[in-house]
Amino acid sequence: MRVIITGGGGFLGKALATRLLQRGHLSADGTDERIDRITLIDVVPPDGLDDSRIAQLTGDISDQRLLERAVDAQTTSVFHLAAVVSGQAEADFDLGMRVNLDGTRALLEVCRAAGHRPRFVFASSVAVYGGHLPPVVLDDTPLTPQTSYGTQKAIDELLVADYSRRGFVDGRSLRLPTVTVRPGRPNAAASSFASGIIREPVNGEESICPVDRATRMWVISPASAVGGFIHAHDLPGERLGSNRSISLPGLSVTVGEMVDALERVAGADAVARIRWQKDARITTLVDTWPGTLDASRGRSLGFPQDDNFEAIVRAYVESREKGR
Amino acid sequence: MRVIITGGGGFLGKALATRLLQRGHLSADGTDERIDRITLIDVVPPDGLDDSRIAQLTGDISDQRLLERAVDAQTTSVFHLAAVVSGQAEADFDLGMRVNLDGTRALLEVCRAAGHRPRFVFASSVAVYGGHLPPVVLDDTPLTPQTSYGTQKAIDELLVADYSRRGFVDGRSLRLPTVTVRPGRPNAAASSFASGIIREPVNGEESICPVDRATRMWVISPASAVGGFIHAHDLPGERLGSNRSISLPGLSVTVGEMVDALERVAGADAVARIRWQKDARITTLVDTWPGTLDASRGRSLGFPQDDNFEAIVRAYVESREKGR
Repeated sequence: MRVIITGGGGFLGKALATRLLQRGHLSADGTDERIDRITLIDVVPPDGLDDSRIAQLTGDISDQRLLERAVDAQTTSVFHLAAVVSGQAEADFDLGMRVNLDGTRALLEVCRAAGHRPRFVFASSVAVYGGHLPPVVLDDTPLTPQTSYGTQKAIDELLVADYSRRGFVDGRSLRLPTVTVRPGRPNAAASSFASGIIREPVNGEESICPVDRATRMWVISPASAVGGFIHAHDLPGERLGSNRSISLPGLSVTVGEMVDALERVAGADAVARIRWQKDARITTLVDTWPGTLDASRGRSLGFPQDDNFEAIVRAYVESREKGR
Repeated sequence: MRVIITGGGGFLGKALATRLLQRGHLSADGTDERIDRITLIDVVPPDGLDDSRIAQLTGDISDQRLLERAVDAQTTSVFHLAAVVSGQAEADFDLGMRVNLDGTRALLEVCRAAGHRPRFVFASSVAVYGGHLPPVVLDDTPLTPQTSYGTQKAIDELLVADYSRRGFVDGRSLRLPTVTVRPGRPNAAASSFASGIIREPVNGEESICPVDRATRMWVISPASAVGGFIHAHDLPGERLGSNRSISLPGLSVTVGEMVDALERVAGADAVARIRWQKDARITTLVDTWPGTLDASRGRSLGFPQDDNFEAIVRAYVESREKGR
C-alpha cells in the first residue's frame, strides 16, 4: 500500500503515520496488505519520524503540482488531514477558502486523475453543524454551519460524496469531535483551550479558559481519532452505501466535568492553574458547535470510543511521562 | 436600482427581466426604488428585449473579468440563474463544476469586492435533496444530493449562506421545483420532459415521456418562479434570519395527473401525441428528487403558489396564443 497523509507534519498526521508504521498494513476490500510507503505532505516537514518507509513533501496542499508529484497510479490510500483551523479560517476568509476548499478539491482531482479510485479518508468536523440545533444532534441533522471553517468542511463532504458516487475516489468523511489532549502549544483553533486547560496545568503552567464551566463539548482522544481514521480506511465501501459522512463516537462533557477529571488525576494544584477569563469571540464560535451527538451509526460501524474523560487525561499524563 | 441577471438569455432570465421592466421598481430595506438598469449576462445574447434600461454582456459566468465589468459599486441586486442543467452536469462533470460551482463563487467574489453587500438571489433546486428521503421532504431535510448538479447547487447554498453571514452579500437561495411549462425546445435537463409532454402535444407535435405515469414531481409555473425571485429579493433580511435557503411552494403531481390535466385542457388528441418510452438514465436522475415538499416556510414568507396543474397548462396555452 502507498499512503499519503496531508497535514502529515501536524500532531494528528504524525500520530497517524506513527501508528501506521507500527501496524505495518492496511486493508482494501477485505485483504490486509503491507504498507510500503507513507508520504507526508505539509507546509512544515515533520521531525522524529525516522523510517525508510517515510517520504516527505513540503508545500501547500492547494498547490496542484505538488499534489501531482505525490499522488500517482500506485497510491492506494489518502488521509486528508491538512486544514486551516477554525479560528484562523474565521479571521482570514481567503486563506480558509484556499486551503480548506481549493486544497481538498485539488487533492480529489489528482486522485481522480490517477484513475484507480483510491481510498480517501477526509477529516471533517462537528463544526459542519450549527445554528438552531436539537438537544442531541443526529447523523442526519441538517448542516447549517455558522463558521467559515464549518462551511468549508461541509462543502468538502459534499465533494467527497459526489466524487465517490461517480467512482473517482472511494471516500469517507469523518466528523471529528474536538481532539483533546493535544500535546505542544496552543494554536489558532477556537477549541485550542480544550487541550490547554488540561495540558498546561499538568505541565505546571497557567492556562486561560475562555468559556464557561457549563459549556458542553463533544470530545475525542488523539488515540481514538487516529484509530477512527484507520478503521474508516479499512471499512468495506458497501457498509457505507451512499452516505459517506460518519460522526466519530465522542464523549459529551462540560468544561466543568473536564476540569473535575483533571483534579482527580492531577490534583487541586493543577486546577488552580486555570484562569477563567471569558472571551466573547471564542465563546460565540464554540457555542455554534453541538455538545452532544448521537453517534450510533459510527458505533455500529465499529469505530473506537473513549471510556470517559478521566481516562483521556490519564492517557495524556502517561504519554507525557513516556516522552521524557 | 441596478440589476444583474445571469442566465439572462435563458427563458427564465428573460421572463424575469421582462417582469422587472414592467414593474419598474424593486425594494431594498422596505422602500421601493426605480430600476435604472438591468444587465443580462449569458453565453448567448437574448433577443426581443428592446428597452433602454437593458444592457447585455456576452460570456461565461466563470470568467472573473467579465463579472468584474458587470458588477460595480452601483450594483444593488444580482439574480443568479445561470447554470449547466442537471443532465449536462451529470454527463460533463468538469463543465458542471466550472459553471455551477466556480461561476457562482466568482460572482459572489465580485459582489464581495464591490463592498456594499448587494442583494443576491440564487436559483437553487430541489435536486439538492436525494438519497433516502422521507415521504414529505421538509425544509430542513438534510441535503444528500445524488447528482453532480444537486451537489453543486448544495455547495452554492452553503457559500451563499456563509457570504451572507459574513456580510459580503445579502443572499437568498431559492430551491426551485421543476419549472413547467417552458416554451421553446427540449434541453439537456433531466426534467425537460415535464415541459415537453405538455408543450409538444399542445403544439401538435409528438413528445416522448421517459418516466412512468406514477412518477411524482414537484413543479411550479414560470410565472410563480419569476414572482418568487422578485419576492425573495424584496423580503427584508431579518425575516430570513441565518437560514438563507427557502423551498419555493410548488405543486406535487404525478406525471399521470399532468397528462390528465392536459387532456382536460387540450383534449384526447393532444394526449395521444405522447409516446411512453422509458429511459433508465433519466428515470434514475428524476427518482432522486423529492416529489412532495413541505413548503410552509415559503408560504408563510408570502411566496406565490400555483392553484393546480390545470391552471398551469391553461396559462401556457394562453401565452402561446398571445405570442402568435
